[in-house]
Amino acid sequence: MHIREFQEMMRSLYLHRDSKRGVKGTYDRLAEELEELGEALKGKDKEAVQKEFADVIAWLASLANMTGIDLEKVTITKYSGKCPRCQQSPCNCRF
Amino acid sequence: MHIREFQEMMRSLYLHRDSKRGVKGTYDRLAEELEELGEALKGKDKEAVQKEFADVIAWLASLANMTGIDLEKVTITKYSGKCPRCQQSPCNCRF
Repeated sequence: MHIREFQEMMRSLYLHRDSKRGVKGTYDRLAEELEELGEALKGKDKEAVQKEFADVIAWLASLANMTGIDLEKVTITKYSGKCPRCQQSPCNCRF
Repeated sequence: MHIREFQEMMRSLYLHRDSKRGVKGTYDRLAEELEELGEALKGKDKEAVQKEFADVIAWLASLANMTGIDLEKVTITKYSGKCPRCQQSPCNCRF
């Protein structure tokens, strides 16, 4: 599935709810989901980890919808097959 | 771009570095990027916001690579066109 397609699915499913919650409320939910992913990664429940990964990208897409961001476009713009810092593939600079 | 394709790009670019950093170190960088996105959203610099969104999804893909997660697969499994909680489209339960 394309990143854009997923973002559109999130828009269809949740924009009416996201709009009521607002940008800050949606960001806060994303931050909560990331914490839940961190907790899941400390355990051994693989299914819980899988679901938390899905939730983090889902809330990131919701936040993108709320802020007028085309997640696929901004991602490809920054990451176009080379490291944006060193312009190498594989990256020769990240630490 | 497919979510899977993007994750593979991140693998090619960064897995050698991500592996040295480990799961916790990669999670911590993702959490830092999310904080940076939060800060950018408080300002008026649209380009900064775009770059921070790209960084969050990039580090999420790196973390998925480090933990053996197929980000596209787990995302489609949980979000298949209906809300996973109420099974409606649009969602009728989220708050």
